[in-house]
Formats: sequence, structure tokens, C-alpha cells
Amino acid sequence: MSIKQITVIGVGLIGGSFAKGLKSRKFAGKLTGYGANLEKLQRAVEINVIDDFSLDIQDAVKDADLIMLAIPMGAFAEVFKKIQPFIKTSVIITDAGSSKLSVINTAQAIFGKDFTGFVPAHPIAGKEQSGVNVADENLFIDHKVILTPSEKTDKHALKQVKELWKMLGANIVEMSAKEHDDVLAASSHLPHMLAFAMVDLLAGNKDLPKVFDFTAGGFKDFSRIASSNPVMWRDIAISNRPAIIKWLKNYQQSLSKIIQMMENQQADSLLDLFTNAKKTRDEFVAGKNNDN
Amino acid sequence: MSIKQITVIGVGLIGGSFAKGLKSRKFAGKLTGYGANLEKLQRAVEINVIDDFSLDIQDAVKDADLIMLAIPMGAFAEVFKKIQPFIKTSVIITDAGSSKLSVINTAQAIFGKDFTGFVPAHPIAGKEQSGVNVADENLFIDHKVILTPSEKTDKHALKQVKELWKMLGANIVEMSAKEHDDVLAASSHLPHMLAFAMVDLLAGNKDLPKVFDFTAGGFKDFSRIASSNPVMWRDIAISNRPAIIKWLKNYQQSLSKIIQMMENQQADSLLDLFTNAKKTRDEFVAGKNNDN
Repeated sequence: MSIKQITVIGVGLIGGSFAKGLKSRKFAGKLTGYGANLEKLQRAVEINVIDDFSLDIQDAVKDADLIMLAIPMGAFAEVFKKIQPFIKTSVIITDAGSSKLSVINTAQAIFGKDFTGFVPAHPIAGKEQSGVNVADENLFIDHKVILTPSEKTDKHALKQVKELWKMLGANIVEMSAKEHDDVLAASSHLPHMLAFAMVDLLAGNKDLPKVFDFTAGGFKDFSRIASSNPVMWRDIAISNRPAIIKWLKNYQQSLSKIIQMMENQQADSLLDLFTNAKKTRDEFVAGKNNDN
Repeated sequence: MSIKQITVIGVGLIGGSFAKGLKSRKFAGKLTGYGANLEKLQRAVEINVIDDFSLDIQDAVKDADLIMLAIPMGAFAEVFKKIQPFIKTSVIITDAGSSKLSVINTAQAIFGKDFTGFVPAHPIAGKEQSGVNVADENLFIDHKVILTPSEKTDKHALKQVKELWKMLGANIVEMSAKEHDDVLAASSHLPHMLAFAMVDLLAGNKDLPKVFDFTAGGFKDFSRIASSNPVMWRDIAISNRPAIIKWLKNYQQSLSKIIQMMENQQADSLLDLFTNAKKTRDEFVAGKNNDN
């Protein structure tokens, strides 16, 4: 491994777990943090997440061999612009963003089409809490990390990023950025939009102010993802909007199918649909349990 | 309490917990079970859920002062018809069905408009498992039971049913059957339909066969209610279809609103919506924790 310094921009749950995981696994180089909050960065050093930090972005990135951006989707353009004048020409840049086409387009616009050192990545891992205090060196073990290099991505840079994720115990999957954005829109972004929309509908309903008094156990689990970070999800909704809109419209059609079955009292069709959904979901959970 | 014999039709989780709860709280009368499965009824006697049982419906109901029907929504018409020739004229009939207007209409059609002893009820309680083996004498403690009597409902019958639920520790709420069906369609039936529809959509998607490989933690909770009993939910979807269809259409409009915000890149509107949803859901969970 030729990487002597890694700079993590955004030392929260994901960036912090990435750094702490590498440090705890004897990554030989130096781990530097950058952020806007002095106290959080001091705390990150205290709990062995990073070796040092800087509040000056030039200082933080000028010697970095690899820069990991673990920041909200909405912050990429600004951070790319800030670091662009100071990075080494040989630097490898990677990220942990939830949508990929928009980050890739932003990187191209700012670093130019000739810059081949950007390796787009998305670790599928998280926790209910956020922030550096819950950073966990084992967060990525047996979790998927999706890499979406293009044909132009520097092969050496890709190899280095893969080695880091392997060191962290992650399962690396490669696919195109377009496929990533479509799959994640369906598997993650769609359910979050559905949960937000449901709570919004019930909360906005003035005729039935007591509706939340009559939810049973299932509702708490179903609505859990509506308690997710609103800023993060605003950014995802904007950055991956073409794929999410496609899936929301597909979903509206699924609902129209169910509405039609009810209107026509097609009890057998409803039973088939519910039975298949239960079977699929039960198999999914059984499969996940075997994985972990 | 003037009730000397209660007959429970359908000795599963709900009917079994109702019976076991009354027995364990020194209800002075006799608890008789009726069902189609000899082994399950024998088991119910063994584990102190009921005192005795009959596989003959005439025998099971002819001396009953109160009959509790804890059966799927789709079975009410048939069971009402079977018991109608044999019940005492003074009998009180109550139920635990998830929708109320349809049961009330079925009862009127079979027992006649002059029969005032039917007290429609819906306990908001359940477990992931079903069957008499998981019957729990404390299942209803601090859980809501919604009663939906009409002006014609016999006052004495209503009082007796209330006393039984109080004995079980439940919180009794009264509302009209129409309001019940509307509130429950929003708070319970809608989320179930949404979860079934989402798993159906993702499962039926042949372009992205791997979509379930890329779900994160939130998906498991969000989809949990899609693992619910398909027969029960077919029956609810049919029996409460006017209210559920109304809410599904409202929900489609909520999704259209979100789609439009994304298409117009209204980041602030999306942030407001997600923030309000999170706030509502967090308050709901905090409130529930205080309740229990």
C-alpha cells in the first residue's frame, strides 16, 4: 500500500468508522481529519478515530494520498471546489455518498475530465445514531460496499480503495453508477420516501386528530425510517431524483392495482399478492440472518 | 355480573387471551370454547385458557349468556348463520374484528334489526405469533379496546362487555363504527397495504433481481408488517375496502406532492416535509413509551 496519509473530510459516524477501523487494523499511514467543529475533531483524536486534524482545508488535504469524503450529498460541490486548488495531482479521492451519478458529475465538473483518481463508493451501513461518538471500527464488517468506477477510473486508485475496504471487512460489489442509483432508489430511497409520506399524511389529517392513538405495534417499526435525518434525505431526494421519481411512480401504479382489486372485490388476487409478499419478505429476512 | 357462561368462538391468540385473562382474574362463570380442531381445543383446556369445549356449535352456544367471536373477518357471515338458530334470545354477542361496519351489517342481516344484543368491539393488541399456545392473560393490559355501539345497542349488554374488558385491564374507547373504520384504515390498514405493495413491487422487478441484496437495516423493520397473515389481511382489505381505498388514494396524492417537489427541485419544501414527519414520529414514539 502506497498510501501514507489519508484525510477524512466529515468525521461523523461513517467517516469516523472508516478512520477508526483502519487505525485499529494497523493501517501504517497517518489519518487526518477535517471538519468545521473543533470540539468534535478533538474528541475524534481522544477516542482514537484519527491521528490529527486541521480546521484549515489546505493544510488538511495538501499532503493527502487519499481523501475520503463522508459528507452530506448536498455538500460535495462546495467541498470539491474548496480542495481542488490544493490536492496533489496523484491524489485518490473516494466518498461514501448515497447516490453516485450526481457525485460523479460534480467531480467531473470541478476536477475536469482528465482527473481519473476519483473512485465513487457507497458503504451500505449505518446506525440510528449519528456522530463521531458512535463511530465503530467494526461497522463495515460483512456489509456491502458498492464501488462504481467507470472505464476511465485509474486502476491503481481503484485497487487502493478496494484494499482499504477489504481491510475493514466489507464485501465489495462493483456496478455502474446508473445501476447503483436505480437499485438504491428501489431498496432504500423508495421506502424512506414512503415512510415520510405516510407520517406526513396522517399528521396533516385534521379530521382524525387521534389517528396516532390507534396505531398498533407494527406501526412503530414501519414508521421508524421516518425518524431519519431530514437534511440527509433532502439531499438524497434531490441528488438521486430521476431514479427515485421513477420508483415512486411505479409504486403509485402498484397501489392502483391493489385499489382496483379491492374495488372489484378480487379476494383471490389480493390473497395471492399478500401471500407472495409475505413469502418474499420471510425469505429475505431468513437470508439476511444467515448472512450475519 | 349476570353472565354465567361465555362461549369463545375461535380460540386463537385473541380469543384465547380473552378467555385466559378472564379465568385468571376469577371470572366466576364458565368459559367454553368452540372450534373445528379437536387438538387445539384440548390444548386450550390443558393450558387453562378455557374450562371446556364442544365441536358441536349448537352444544357450544345454546346455554351461552355471552358469545365472543374472535374469528377472521371473512368468517362472520357463516358463523352468525350457524349459531342463529340456537342462541338464547337474551344472549350478548361481541367480537374482536378489525373492521366494524361490515360485521354490524352482517349481524343485522342475520339476526334481524330487532336484535340489540350485539356489541361490536375491536381490541388493539396482537403479537407476531398466532395460535392458542401464545395466548396471554395480560395481552390487553393498557391496550385500547374500541367499542362501536349504536343508539339501538342494548345498554345492559354494552355494560357487561365493558366490565369484561375492564377486568382484562384494557382502556375502553367508544366511537361510531364509521369513525372506527376510518381511523383504523389510516393507522393500521393503510400501512399494511403499503408494506405489501412495496414488497410486491420489488419482488416483481425482473430488471433488478438483486434489489433485496442492497437493503439496509431500516428495510427489515419497514417491511415487517408485510410478513403478516395474508388471509387475515385479504379479509380486512375486502371488509373495510371503502375506507382503505379512500386512504390509499389520499396516499397516492401525498406521493404526487413529493414527486412534484422533486421534479421542481424544491429542496426547502422537501426538508420541511421530512422534518415535520420526523418530529411527528419521534413525538409519537416518545408518547407510546410513556404510555407503556
